[in-house]
Amino acid sequence: MTTVRDASFELFRRHRMTTIFGNPGSTELPMLGPLPEDFRYVLGLQEAVAVGMADGFAQASGNVAHVNLHTAPGLGNGVGAIFNARANRAPLLVTAGQQARSLITMQANLTNRDAVEVPKPYVKYSVEPPRPADVPFALAQAIANASLPPAGPAFVSIPMDDWLVEVEPIDYAAQVARGVGGRAQPAPQQIAELAARLRAAERPVFVAGPDIDASGGWDAAIELVESERLPVWATPPTGGGRIGFPEDHPAFQGMLPPAVGPLAQTLAGHDLVLVAGSSVFPYYPNIPGDFLAEGTSLIAITCDPDEAARAPMGDAIVADVALTLRALADRLDGECRRDAPPARAELEPLAPGEQLSGGEVHATLAELFPQDGIVVLESPSSTAALRNRLRLSRPGSYYFSASGGLGFGLSASVGVQLAQPARPVVCVLGEGSAQYGITALWSALAYKAPVTFLILRNDEYMILKWFAMLEQVTGAPGLDLPGLDVAAVARGYGLPAQDVTGREELTEALRSAVAADDGPRVIQVPVASGMWLE
Amino acid sequence: MTTVRDASFELFRRHRMTTIFGNPGSTELPMLGPLPEDFRYVLGLQEAVAVGMADGFAQASGNVAHVNLHTAPGLGNGVGAIFNARANRAPLLVTAGQQARSLITMQANLTNRDAVEVPKPYVKYSVEPPRPADVPFALAQAIANASLPPAGPAFVSIPMDDWLVEVEPIDYAAQVARGVGGRAQPAPQQIAELAARLRAAERPVFVAGPDIDASGGWDAAIELVESERLPVWATPPTGGGRIGFPEDHPAFQGMLPPAVGPLAQTLAGHDLVLVAGSSVFPYYPNIPGDFLAEGTSLIAITCDPDEAARAPMGDAIVADVALTLRALADRLDGECRRDAPPARAELEPLAPGEQLSGGEVHATLAELFPQDGIVVLESPSSTAALRNRLRLSRPGSYYFSASGGLGFGLSASVGVQLAQPARPVVCVLGEGSAQYGITALWSALAYKAPVTFLILRNDEYMILKWFAMLEQVTGAPGLDLPGLDVAAVARGYGLPAQDVTGREELTEALRSAVAADDGPRVIQVPVASGMWLE
Repeated sequence: MTTVRDASFELFRRHRMTTIFGNPGSTELPMLGPLPEDFRYVLGLQEAVAVGMADGFAQASGNVAHVNLHTAPGLGNGVGAIFNARANRAPLLVTAGQQARSLITMQANLTNRDAVEVPKPYVKYSVEPPRPADVPFALAQAIANASLPPAGPAFVSIPMDDWLVEVEPIDYAAQVARGVGGRAQPAPQQIAELAARLRAAERPVFVAGPDIDASGGWDAAIELVESERLPVWATPPTGGGRIGFPEDHPAFQGMLPPAVGPLAQTLAGHDLVLVAGSSVFPYYPNIPGDFLAEGTSLIAITCDPDEAARAPMGDAIVADVALTLRALADRLDGECRRDAPPARAELEPLAPGEQLSGGEVHATLAELFPQDGIVVLESPSSTAALRNRLRLSRPGSYYFSASGGLGFGLSASVGVQLAQPARPVVCVLGEGSAQYGITALWSALAYKAPVTFLILRNDEYMILKWFAMLEQVTGAPGLDLPGLDVAAVARGYGLPAQDVTGREELTEALRSAVAADDGPRVIQVPVASGMWLE
Repeated sequence: MTTVRDASFELFRRHRMTTIFGNPGSTELPMLGPLPEDFRYVLGLQEAVAVGMADGFAQASGNVAHVNLHTAPGLGNGVGAIFNARANRAPLLVTAGQQARSLITMQANLTNRDAVEVPKPYVKYSVEPPRPADVPFALAQAIANASLPPAGPAFVSIPMDDWLVEVEPIDYAAQVARGVGGRAQPAPQQIAELAARLRAAERPVFVAGPDIDASGGWDAAIELVESERLPVWATPPTGGGRIGFPEDHPAFQGMLPPAVGPLAQTLAGHDLVLVAGSSVFPYYPNIPGDFLAEGTSLIAITCDPDEAARAPMGDAIVADVALTLRALADRLDGECRRDAPPARAELEPLAPGEQLSGGEVHATLAELFPQDGIVVLESPSSTAALRNRLRLSRPGSYYFSASGGLGFGLSASVGVQLAQPARPVVCVLGEGSAQYGITALWSALAYKAPVTFLILRNDEYMILKWFAMLEQVTGAPGLDLPGLDVAAVARGYGLPAQDVTGREELTEALRSAVAADDGPRVIQVPVASGMWLE
């Protein structure tokens, strides 16, 4: 006899979803036990952590990841992380247990009233199946929705007494068997027009966004850029959840500034801006101005219809980013007579101060960063410095929350490491950022994820002090973080943690932590107060 | 010139809302700075903590509490805690910053798209004002909605550039001045009928719920129970967010069991059940049976129309609980000829084992618990033991999350202590429960809240193992918590923390911690594995 549970686990297997992240409760027990031997469960001690780990795992594996939460309160705790996952285009199946069907109408304790409303507006699909036998079909729909472009979270609420109900093949067999794909290539006519427009441009420029990485488009982007001799900017780091182009490439110019006016000025002088795999643009903060300089036109390639629709200027093509770049590169190959783009300006030499600057920390990290290393970043006051120092240049090497919110980094790094066990993961955090999902440290230790956590400690929310200056706000409370010692907390969770000062000590600690493969290490370094751009 | 900001702070003052809980971001800075001198800001390092602190503060102060969150990601992180606050009937004003109005349509970074949808279905009111000048009016509506019965959270999303816009008196003066009240007394006819029904009953019983405490109904409840010689049960602890009747009173019989069948059996033999200030009932787990035994009828008094509507049996009166009990007591005074209710059975003597049981821990706490002490409880496997040992008997002495979710206790205890600085607060947590809002330890220290955190450490989610047994589930993963040491983590956050074993050591540590008034103390005690009912 096949149960809802058997059919659902068969479906998970079919989609290689044999890792389940979660924080369990009574309403989830009938799903979880006994866990089949080919599945593993990764426990997060709070739901934001469970979702964040699944987000990192989904992005770094390129597969739908499953996170299971505890009815209303668990799902509620995860909403912020689901928002991050939506912004990151992480394909997530979010499931939550629900009261037994017989107790829902009276709203017995732990009923997830209006369950399908809770994760909105951040999920692509949200359902509570009307009958137990519909659970496998609903899960299949959720998995399909999560993975179809643009990828994102999808939600299913499952009454706890549904799992052991018997089902017939008609309820699940076709659902388990079918595959759904949605990577779309533009029509040949669109490619031809885009190629002609690019070829006709005198001073075109390429803007690389995160979906180049997510779609597997690095090679096509490099080929196109080289054959067309395009200078390349990375989309503003505020929305750059991944890196889409090698940042040590001679054509690479740096990161676009994130505000409207400065961004337009940076692109002024170009007659055509080709944006690949980014929103146009992840603007922040609010520095008004023209969206583009006179004489500049723009065209964006995105897999997301909403992203195409909501851009305040320019044209857009909705299609798979990698396939579009490949088609374009193939069509344009070898006829370009433009000059090579100028070389990027050298970084200013670092002036050592009493305490290390963010730039010095990242210059130190850059010296020893392994070829196949991955950075997961959530250190708002040194994001730019890290990008400018490390110049990451391999696919799947960088994860950052494109949402602008905090709470992604620490948890996501554990998920990234579990998905990429052979690559060293360095998670760079401010001591403030680390607090939104601090218990992920316990998960890193429990599941022996050898992440190197590098904590920049400045006793403040520096990014907010900088914004306050920009917004001409004085006297705002809550911007200082006295006595917040992540290394000490990490030791409390049982992780080896080291406080270091100075580049030499930092170098040694980083080398040893990055080399370790038996579990996580924490390194905390005091940094001077400031916004570190390089 | 008056700005939106001036008018809003005037409104907050008018409602005695001069404490703001929050976790700030760039979109909140224009509201927060400069903070007027008569306001204080209480920083939480994650939003679930900020909301949880505000929940405790609102309940323990009886006033609307204000919690300010950071646009979409901050609000999202708070949804679980907002769910708890809704279940707890905590009057909360939840505000969140929003992108500048000019950047919302293009969804620039940190835009809270569909902001009003995010906290649904857990808020009573959710709005983003269509013009800056409407912000004070929207805040006034939210405050009124939050405080009107049934109290609960209300939400306003505020674009960051609204605060400094100038407003005219017509935009705010009447809103600041007006008062809104909603405590309703039942029509005299309803009281007369209820009194007659109670008087006619031969073996009536009284069930005390959390809203007796919230509505200030202790005295009326005691008077009614004594004059009518009613035995008293507390509503099942699953939904008993507060205690509504002195648990050392001779009429008090104990807590109702939370499942359908056993609850009906407990009340069998009574011809009338009078429920005051509780849902009917917070059932969990699922043990089916008749809702009431043959011959038992039920009537519930609740301030919540939905609670009245959704009960699976019995009649209901929607009105203020305290006022209704007072009117009933006044009408019935002095004519009853029933026998006094039987005395409650004595607790079994505790058999000391190798490790302390939950019962022994709470028996120890009971010996030294101060008269004016307050318990904030989130230790699912020893909830019943604590209630049975401490027999709390003063109003406002007990806070527990009525939602059934975890993550309320640690944060709420800090808010309760800030609202009741003169009363000793003891927060009783499992080491698992503590993790959902662990960073509240930092807030307790930073704001010198002298909470005693008593951590029962059993290396597991005991309540889930018990549920698994009940549900006949085996082999569920994620139920063990190896190496989770809250005292060590607390030390990491800078709190004095002590590990104790044995009743003597525990007694000494508790006495000293409860007496301390200069800041928080953590005491961690290993307890044997088990569900502790007494």
